[in-house]
Amino acid sequence: MTVDPDSGLLSPVRAGTPAEASTGDEAWLRAMLDAEAALARAQARLGTVPPEAAEAITEAAGKARIDVAELARGSRATANPVVGLVKALTSAVGELAPGAAEYVHRGSTSQDIFDTAMMLVADRTLRPLAADLDATAEALAGLARVHRDTTMAGRTLTAHAVPTTFGLKVAGWRQLVLDAAVRIRRVLDGGLPVSLGGAAGTLAAYVEYARLADEPATGRGGGGGGRGGGGGGGGGDAGTPAGVPGRSGATRDADVGDYVQQLTAAFAEETGLAAPVLPWHSLRTPVADLAGALAFTAGALGKLAVDVETLSRTELGEVAEPAADGRGGSSAMPHKRNPVLATLIRSAALQVPVLAAGVTQAMLAEDERSAGVWHAEWQLIRECLRLTGGAAHTAAELARGLSAEPGRMRANLASTHGLIVSERLSAVLAPLLGKATAKELLGEASRRAVREDRPLRDVLDELPAVTDVLTPAALDELLDPAGYTGAAGALVDRALGGGEPGGSD
Amino acid sequence: MTVDPDSGLLSPVRAGTPAEASTGDEAWLRAMLDAEAALARAQARLGTVPPEAAEAITEAAGKARIDVAELARGSRATANPVVGLVKALTSAVGELAPGAAEYVHRGSTSQDIFDTAMMLVADRTLRPLAADLDATAEALAGLARVHRDTTMAGRTLTAHAVPTTFGLKVAGWRQLVLDAAVRIRRVLDGGLPVSLGGAAGTLAAYVEYARLADEPATGRGGGGGGRGGGGGGGGGDAGTPAGVPGRSGATRDADVGDYVQQLTAAFAEETGLAAPVLPWHSLRTPVADLAGALAFTAGALGKLAVDVETLSRTELGEVAEPAADGRGGSSAMPHKRNPVLATLIRSAALQVPVLAAGVTQAMLAEDERSAGVWHAEWQLIRECLRLTGGAAHTAAELARGLSAEPGRMRANLASTHGLIVSERLSAVLAPLLGKATAKELLGEASRRAVREDRPLRDVLDELPAVTDVLTPAALDELLDPAGYTGAAGALVDRALGGGEPGGSD
Amino acid sequence: MTVDPDSGLLSPVRAGTPAEASTGDEAWLRAMLDAEAALARAQARLGTVPPEAAEAITEAAGKARIDVAELARGSRATANPVVGLVKALTSAVGELAPGAAEYVHRGSTSQDIFDTAMMLVADRTLRPLAADLDATAEALAGLARVHRDTTMAGRTLTAHAVPTTFGLKVAGWRQLVLDAAVRIRRVLDGGLPVSLGGAAGTLAAYVEYARLADEPATGRGGGGGGRGGGGGGGGGDAGTPAGVPGRSGATRDADVGDYVQQLTAAFAEETGLAAPVLPWHSLRTPVADLAGALAFTAGALGKLAVDVETLSRTELGEVAEPAADGRGGSSAMPHKRNPVLATLIRSAALQVPVLAAGVTQAMLAEDERSAGVWHAEWQLIRECLRLTGGAAHTAAELARGLSAEPGRMRANLASTHGLIVSERLSAVLAPLLGKATAKELLGEASRRAVREDRPLRDVLDELPAVTDVLTPAALDELLDPAGYTGAAGALVDRALGGGEPGGSD
Amino acid sequence: MTVDPDSGLLSPVRAGTPAEASTGDEAWLRAMLDAEAALARAQARLGTVPPEAAEAITEAAGKARIDVAELARGSRATANPVVGLVKALTSAVGELAPGAAEYVHRGSTSQDIFDTAMMLVADRTLRPLAADLDATAEALAGLARVHRDTTMAGRTLTAHAVPTTFGLKVAGWRQLVLDAAVRIRRVLDGGLPVSLGGAAGTLAAYVEYARLADEPATGRGGGGGGRGGGGGGGGGDAGTPAGVPGRSGATRDADVGDYVQQLTAAFAEETGLAAPVLPWHSLRTPVADLAGALAFTAGALGKLAVDVETLSRTELGEVAEPAADGRGGSSAMPHKRNPVLATLIRSAALQVPVLAAGVTQAMLAEDERSAGVWHAEWQLIRECLRLTGGAAHTAAELARGLSAEPGRMRANLASTHGLIVSERLSAVLAPLLGKATAKELLGEASRRAVREDRPLRDVLDELPAVTDVLTPAALDELLDPAGYTGAAGALVDRALGGGEPGGSD
Repeated sequence: MTVDPDSGLLSPVRAGTPAEASTGDEAWLRAMLDAEAALARAQARLGTVPPEAAEAITEAAGKARIDVAELARGSRATANPVVGLVKALTSAVGELAPGAAEYVHRGSTSQDIFDTAMMLVADRTLRPLAADLDATAEALAGLARVHRDTTMAGRTLTAHAVPTTFGLKVAGWRQLVLDAAVRIRRVLDGGLPVSLGGAAGTLAAYVEYARLADEPATGRGGGGGGRGGGGGGGGGDAGTPAGVPGRSGATRDADVGDYVQQLTAAFAEETGLAAPVLPWHSLRTPVADLAGALAFTAGALGKLAVDVETLSRTELGEVAEPAADGRGGSSAMPHKRNPVLATLIRSAALQVPVLAAGVTQAMLAEDERSAGVWHAEWQLIRECLRLTGGAAHTAAELARGLSAEPGRMRANLASTHGLIVSERLSAVLAPLLGKATAKELLGEASRRAVREDRPLRDVLDELPAVTDVLTPAALDELLDPAGYTGAAGALVDRALGGGEPGGSD
Repeated sequence: MTVDPDSGLLSPVRAGTPAEASTGDEAWLRAMLDAEAALARAQARLGTVPPEAAEAITEAAGKARIDVAELARGSRATANPVVGLVKALTSAVGELAPGAAEYVHRGSTSQDIFDTAMMLVADRTLRPLAADLDATAEALAGLARVHRDTTMAGRTLTAHAVPTTFGLKVAGWRQLVLDAAVRIRRVLDGGLPVSLGGAAGTLAAYVEYARLADEPATGRGGGGGGRGGGGGGGGGDAGTPAGVPGRSGATRDADVGDYVQQLTAAFAEETGLAAPVLPWHSLRTPVADLAGALAFTAGALGKLAVDVETLSRTELGEVAEPAADGRGGSSAMPHKRNPVLATLIRSAALQVPVLAAGVTQAMLAEDERSAGVWHAEWQLIRECLRLTGGAAHTAAELARGLSAEPGRMRANLASTHGLIVSERLSAVLAPLLGKATAKELLGEASRRAVREDRPLRDVLDELPAVTDVLTPAALDELLDPAGYTGAAGALVDRALGGGEPGGSD
Repeated sequence: MTVDPDSGLLSPVRAGTPAEASTGDEAWLRAMLDAEAALARAQARLGTVPPEAAEAITEAAGKARIDVAELARGSRATANPVVGLVKALTSAVGELAPGAAEYVHRGSTSQDIFDTAMMLVADRTLRPLAADLDATAEALAGLARVHRDTTMAGRTLTAHAVPTTFGLKVAGWRQLVLDAAVRIRRVLDGGLPVSLGGAAGTLAAYVEYARLADEPATGRGGGGGGRGGGGGGGGGDAGTPAGVPGRSGATRDADVGDYVQQLTAAFAEETGLAAPVLPWHSLRTPVADLAGALAFTAGALGKLAVDVETLSRTELGEVAEPAADGRGGSSAMPHKRNPVLATLIRSAALQVPVLAAGVTQAMLAEDERSAGVWHAEWQLIRECLRLTGGAAHTAAELARGLSAEPGRMRANLASTHGLIVSERLSAVLAPLLGKATAKELLGEASRRAVREDRPLRDVLDELPAVTDVLTPAALDELLDPAGYTGAAGALVDRALGGGEPGGSD
Repeated sequence: MTVDPDSGLLSPVRAGTPAEASTGDEAWLRAMLDAEAALARAQARLGTVPPEAAEAITEAAGKARIDVAELARGSRATANPVVGLVKALTSAVGELAPGAAEYVHRGSTSQDIFDTAMMLVADRTLRPLAADLDATAEALAGLARVHRDTTMAGRTLTAHAVPTTFGLKVAGWRQLVLDAAVRIRRVLDGGLPVSLGGAAGTLAAYVEYARLADEPATGRGGGGGGRGGGGGGGGGDAGTPAGVPGRSGATRDADVGDYVQQLTAAFAEETGLAAPVLPWHSLRTPVADLAGALAFTAGALGKLAVDVETLSRTELGEVAEPAADGRGGSSAMPHKRNPVLATLIRSAALQVPVLAAGVTQAMLAEDERSAGVWHAEWQLIRECLRLTGGAAHTAAELARGLSAEPGRMRANLASTHGLIVSERLSAVLAPLLGKATAKELLGEASRRAVREDRPLRDVLDELPAVTDVLTPAALDELLDPAGYTGAAGALVDRALGGGEPGGSD
């Protein structure tokens, strides 16, 4: 099977994106095989597994061709796919190197392999995702710089409020994308650990096999009275791999602790993941953190999407998505140019937070391994990964191609005939006329302008109370939307890091 | 491609179940093709499309082999897969019958096809799902009947409360399953409509094509001055298919209304779905209802699952899942028999409600078609369908094979040495000793029994206040858990419909 | 305390609405007291409690003044407020009629009282809510009728698609509101049951007290050997209230079944609620159904809200919210008129589905009473009730006062210079020019019209290919948006039930 | 009104806790008043508001008594409570110092005040919450230390798996609590910013008022031709407060940028909150982060709760909640001791993730201020705060008083007659007998032990294949659960930081 079988028909936001490729069933299977191979190599480094067995396991894992659908069906008997995977891998190793087969999955448990694979899949998905966020932020930075002073209507509760600039709007989108990138990198840099705990988080079987490797059980006739280390284990004689738990009761815990710490470190090195403080079989911090960062990222991109959609509306027309190869077209309506990239991103942003909530709830996993709560995480976290990854990929495309229409922005600003600066007039007239008088006068003038569909300027010109205190030139200036963008430009500068406002220059 | 490509590696609850087969990408593609074919046949029945074209479309749709992955990737340009599908189908029809190609998707819009397909997929998934609920309920009824009087501990807030019967417990599970079946059937029986609205819910293009079919445009040179029916349409002359909008302005609306109602009815008949009151492009009642019924069903099955898990605990051991072909086994721990079916069911039950919440939120779809909200529904509703369908299939298997351990139930009941009937003793002693005295005496006796790990009976026997008012035989009876199951048996009878309690027999 | 203490500062959608008044802490306390009183009266009707005791309990419950905050704090010791409530009520009854105090909460358990109160609160909230939905639907029906033929742009993916009518849009909103009303009434008419199960759903203590009432325990010296009915109960001798479980083992179950059915029926009558098939302590159908209906309703109203918001945008201006007493105003910006009612409704519609998901998940309640899952329902379901109730109240206000601006609708329709009917032109030209030629020609013409900001008509007039086949008059008609509203009018008629299209006239 | 009116009747987890006190309506109102006062003082520091006016506003805000319920009802007209609050505060200031009234809320907007108050409420809730997490972690550390080597059954999928120690279990809970504390502190230390953006995020009115303060408008007759600074602003002449935007066009942006940065910093200092990079009116990072940290924390505490509940089960009895003042008691069942603290915590942990999902979704806020999305955050984030705060407070109480029952742990371990170490036997016997033979033999022996209810030791003793290779003493050791706890002890040491395992001491 060469094609990853999950094809995204109902999820175009991720169809064909890197996140789809890195989260499919085949990718997950690959990660589980990688985890098995890495575990064998880690044990080989500590002397628990013969190096040649680890090599054989690595080779077999690399070449293994396992029928995913069959594996999936078989997993209903054990509630997870690792049991079947181990069987298939053991058989493949056996064909390659019969003696190595018994070292497959040695001392391990399904969850160690599955959860380590989950972290590998996450790692492989988050890296391109972070790069896509960077690309998005960079493209938005360029756009914000270009439109630092492009005036447009600021809108609140759907209505024109006061002027703002497109640059500030874009700088805000970028800030959210940067915030998301920080949160994704925080997970990447510290939060994707291997899972290594054995059947119930004590690593007992890993330790037991290490002990057996150190001091092969000789049985009854073997002299030493068979197994001895009930409470402890064999002696740390010369030649013992460092940290292998030895016999002396006094040092037992220290030795065991040493060994598991070294094993965990080696497993982490072999996989490229981090070493956790404690086995996290039922302490789901890594998964919850992952879900949290993805939900945040989806939300951040979703803000960009809903704004692009709003500004794309036929009546607003202030931005347009990049046109390419029939994108955004409609078969029936030749004139349409739909904001399809924003549509895709928003479709992801609406889903991820609820999916992530399911993952967070899965922290309530009873016992050393829950019967169902752990299992509920899998598909949810995969969907979070691929939807957010797809959304980030789509956002980079959107950001790189988004175009602004300053003419439409100006026209829309002008469409309310000056009302958009009424806040400013209110501020200016208050000290001149008294607050109450100014407010009353301005309210009436605004209503009249709307009612009679005339510019506010014309109405004000007829009011002696106004013309007595403000010259026509002053009125002109006050009524210019471009003159009432407050700190928009300075905020863009600050956000883009382009020199501190009021700096030494 | 013969295999449905979504293989369920991370979702064993549905791997290989009917719900997986009916919700995969191929199944969805099939449903979209079915919708296109049904639409052509419906239009043919009303004379808008030549019958032989409808036949060719039906044949081509039936034979079409479309690369799902390619279609999915292509759908990123239009935010939905129907545009690509129509192109592929048109080409396939063209090869079969060139003249028929132009009748593909005539007057239609992507959402009509996609949403109709969604309902077809739902229909095809809900029917076996409902059958699985029936099978589950039937198996549980048998179990409840057998264990009508099997006494066990009733537990509240994790602690023994008062006795109950396993029959009542099972009858409760069954009641929930029946409740779920009612809700699923309610959706099946009334709620799965075709989608037929055209570009914006007015069916304008369907009507236009009907008008053109009725009165072919002859153009300028054709006599009638070209198209005439701007505001109305041609006359309902003899030979016109019933309801085709005719020329007379006076009857225009009635004719149009007639036609769209007939077209909708014909489309419903051809698909086997229902006819809606209004096009529901952005009125998402059918999808929200579907999600609601599935979330309820998942929750109902989840209750069964968590109870089976609790009662399966090593320390309780009151029920056991059916053993089969290595199911529930652990490679590392030969003694284990995990409740894997309950685990699978619970994994679904934890996910579906949050997924369904996303679907319900998608009712907030702006305009005649939302840019992203509609798209967010697709994968969510599919997951709801396949998880719940898988859970129902699994539940039937669980219910058919679940075994009870009355011996363990008795042992557990006895383990608190009589405390489980302290409520009863409290009720009986109050009138004999006065409420306050009875409560104090019983509280102290209970604490002493726990402290000294002795049967409550022994402690009570030493209390003259008790032995003065209750004979040993009375005490024996009062302390028998089996004698304090209240209406459990009668409630089982009532729930199973096995004759009204207190009936004539 | 006369004021209900939950004041809605962060939830204006429900502040001061009927739903707030019926769901506050005081309202909930009232409902719990009502449940206690109704239980006593129900038991009195069956002879288990003296009538005068039931009267005293009813009187005391009616007059009880309990400090809600203190009760709440006290509930931390028992995880529910009923234990403290019973204590307070018992004391209040004791002051009124000392002998009646022991009949308070007789045989009952906290959950019976709390859940019955929950259903009472639901009932009291759903009735005005349903009335508000009716009022909303009625107002929308009027609006749809008036604007049956008011043409406006149909919008998909934020862009103009084809024309529709405001009437059809409003009819769609109304349809959703009607759908919601059906779902709310379905819950009201069948789904709000009393809770009556006793400590673990067997009603054992209720039965025990009935037995004791029937045959007062006489104790050791009393002749009959003390309590006898361990496994059975007293005989149904003359004078025994119908159905009180008697002594004969043979009829025991029937008697018990009879009694609990009668008790449940009496409790249902006294509260005005329904009688359930089984105690539903841990079978949460009623609560899940309630949450489902409320989430649907919130979603339905949310659709209305997002559409009103979109159409209210400064650039669209197609609808306006009712202006009243400073509503929608902004202190800083005298010109603003915010769609505050839609804002409030949407704020609720966004919250309720996730809250309801939490309630549905609470179906996974282990045992006869869960340790925490039951408790998680309380605040969630209250929020669902009051948010949805508030939203419905607000929607009625919005629907009654919403005004349309047909002039703006026309202007917006015209703003794309004819492109909005390109679908129609495409349909008409295809048979005249060939499908491919027509599509190509029309696409180019559309792009040119946009590029040159000219009416599509002007561009087409310059194309002989078009003018050869269509007269100017035909073109005029084809380009009139009002002529391409398809079945909009007929659909409005159908939805409003105003005579079937094509009816007898 | 002296009592905070939200009384927690349906939410005992927070009733009477610090989180309830810091999140009630009165607390929120207080925070909004604090924000208004801090804004005035910040403006005073920059010379925009007279110092004495800022003092008067601060004094009036401190003494203001506003009817919360009335304010809430009034907020329906404007969709937020700040408009009414400003009116009330202005009136209060006016009574105290008439000239100061006009400086209330100067240049501000509702969202600046509301969101700043939200952050103040969050800050005031998170600090005690973090302290409660610390207290919980400390108590758990003590418990883990004491029970470092207390052997108990490790359980997976509800069944005994292999031994573990109670110390490791507790160390895991503690680790989650520490993880939560890190996430809460991350928010506290960097993420709770003031909101300062004015009507649409440009701070235009703040800048305008600063300009007017700097260079009072003199009107037409005043010389300078009325307002001059339309596009620029006055000169930065001597005496001008640092950073007040001056007249020179060249330096305008720098001056404006300086001023808003200083104003933001001053506002941050006066409130004790942080200064954001950009106004976050519609960039909801702070709220989403807060929700994310709270959901994580609730989940972390929820894990503790579900484990305590499981281990408290009557049949397990391995831990017990602290008994105090009737806690956990049941009026009807004198013997019960319910895990009420865990119940309360779990009730919160089930709710918070779905509530937080709603907050994360609210990142999709269109425009400069959304019509409804912003408003949906308020009650959701409050509930997240108070539920999680209540849960942390409850967890500290639980952790301090939780007691373990090592005797029950031992008894439960022994209850499977040795099967709990079958993984170990399997590892040891494999090299002695061959893997396949060992597995088969052990599987059969285990099944026989279960079937015949005999110790595994007895069954093994009868198998020569075993007794040939293992001495009785070796078997004894291998079958001792306490000897198979792997690295449990070392992991506890590592987690508690009590010296590295194998360290130098």
